[in-house]
Amino acid sequence: MKFLEPYIQLIESGLGDLDLPAKPATLYEPQRYTLSGKAKRIRPVLVLIGCGLTGNDPRKAIPAALAVELLHNFTLIHDDIMDDADSRRGRPSVHVKWDLATAILSGDSMFVQAYRQLHRLDPSADFRKIHHLFTEGINQVCEGQALDMEFETRSDVTADEYLGMIAGKTGALISASLQMGAAVGGAGEEQLNQLSLAGESLGLAFQIQDDLLDVIANPEKFGKKQGGDICEGKKTILMLTTLERCKADERQRIMAAIAGKPLSDELVEWITLLYHQYGAIESAREMMGSYYAKAEKAVKTFDDSTYKEDLTKLIHFLKNREY
Amino acid sequence: MKFLEPYIQLIESGLGDLDLPAKPATLYEPQRYTLSGKAKRIRPVLVLIGCGLTGNDPRKAIPAALAVELLHNFTLIHDDIMDDADSRRGRPSVHVKWDLATAILSGDSMFVQAYRQLHRLDPSADFRKIHHLFTEGINQVCEGQALDMEFETRSDVTADEYLGMIAGKTGALISASLQMGAAVGGAGEEQLNQLSLAGESLGLAFQIQDDLLDVIANPEKFGKKQGGDICEGKKTILMLTTLERCKADERQRIMAAIAGKPLSDELVEWITLLYHQYGAIESAREMMGSYYAKAEKAVKTFDDSTYKEDLTKLIHFLKNREY
Repeated sequence: MKFLEPYIQLIESGLGDLDLPAKPATLYEPQRYTLSGKAKRIRPVLVLIGCGLTGNDPRKAIPAALAVELLHNFTLIHDDIMDDADSRRGRPSVHVKWDLATAILSGDSMFVQAYRQLHRLDPSADFRKIHHLFTEGINQVCEGQALDMEFETRSDVTADEYLGMIAGKTGALISASLQMGAAVGGAGEEQLNQLSLAGESLGLAFQIQDDLLDVIANPEKFGKKQGGDICEGKKTILMLTTLERCKADERQRIMAAIAGKPLSDELVEWITLLYHQYGAIESAREMMGSYYAKAEKAVKTFDDSTYKEDLTKLIHFLKNREY
Repeated sequence: MKFLEPYIQLIESGLGDLDLPAKPATLYEPQRYTLSGKAKRIRPVLVLIGCGLTGNDPRKAIPAALAVELLHNFTLIHDDIMDDADSRRGRPSVHVKWDLATAILSGDSMFVQAYRQLHRLDPSADFRKIHHLFTEGINQVCEGQALDMEFETRSDVTADEYLGMIAGKTGALISASLQMGAAVGGAGEEQLNQLSLAGESLGLAFQIQDDLLDVIANPEKFGKKQGGDICEGKKTILMLTTLERCKADERQRIMAAIAGKPLSDELVEWITLLYHQYGAIESAREMMGSYYAKAEKAVKTFDDSTYKEDLTKLIHFLKNREY
């Protein structure tokens, strides 16, 4: 994604200038470590583009972009504890490299650093508005994460509930990113609403696509084993759609298989077959397409600019990804 | 503290009106549980008094007071995990009653709820200023907590470092509370500086007093065994002062005793004797007195009002507490 380079340079340079204190080392070292990991910086790029879309210089939105990236990285530190994930971006996660207490506290502090960044916004910016978008965004992320954890122990989750969960867990921060950038640029309510819609749709499309790629991607390009989500008993949109449509005895057998996860290759193959048979893959593909289309439509309401072109290109790039 | 009743009623009623959503239950139930525990509400009371000191109606500062109380309660949920504390206010702590992931996430969400409260402030309030005081306050709390954890594994902590740690961990939020209330009332920089000083001094005095009461309080009134901190090998101001002043061989024996905590009754008695012998108790008493005096002096710079009287009464009450 060469066209994103100029944005990413601004963000990396901003992160480099963060100047987190040397001490207390147990508080700031894990934050430096987390920020130095390989990352796509999609969310802060969207903040800058959001500002550009309003006809303003994206550089005005750098503090908001850094706030979003810090917030996202804070959620990764805490999520890795909650999910008991030992690694992140190819390196040990913070609670493994340090310990539980250090991971909780350095995550909390990173959350604070995110809010501190907002104070670097120009005095002319509508601070209260930007702060509100940010805070409501992270509130939805928390709710999405809570639902995600609740779903793990529930056997009656519907596809609709799942979409609501992703809208919070993934969509809300993408949506807040675009809106915060636009708010820095002085956008009105109508523009903010369009970007809210674009962001949420993008988040939903992206997650549904992730679920899809698990079964349809070329494993060599995708870098993961095909059917990995099924093997882990994950309740993806494909699984939930199939559970809603299949026969009672099939449902029973699937639920038993999930309870005894990880699933055998035989079971994974059988469930993949059911996904095709009940049209879960086709439905997900349609859903994904319609969310990407919604996002594109919302972006079209803005005046032409290189930022609009870049956002459209980004959506196309994501839509066509095979991994 | 009957004179604080009107403030506490405002806060309890505000907390009752919080209207946290019913779902996701795993996110909000632990927050309701935490807020319903018996608590002194000192920090939000200070927010209201801070506003009153500027000649304004303290009720204007209720959202800021609730923000501070929510923030404080969030720190309790996470601190209990970090300190491996099974109970809080006589009830199981959140990570024990629920589980680790639920405690981390509901704590994070409570932090978000704190920031959300700020949005209920009147549009005439200097939102950016109040937000700044709040965010810098919690930033210092995080640094204080990190230092506190680092001190546990260090053998060369000085009394001065300890005071710096308390200034952050306990003083910063008390200081931010008074200042936020005053900022809602439109206070200028000079008033904010006086309240910053008053708050930090109060926090330091209170913690030094806590350390002192551990060895000089009447155990029946204090509700804890005398010398409990010594028994647990805690590096209180008394311990650190004594370590700085005692002979090398005594120092060695104390460090060995701490390493093998909990300490025997005999060792506790011996260390208590050293506290007296090296004047650590007398020094701490003087320090406490001088911090309480600093706080009072700062409060005296304000115009006379019932709020000034109440804050002075509160300082006297704290100074004279025996438990």
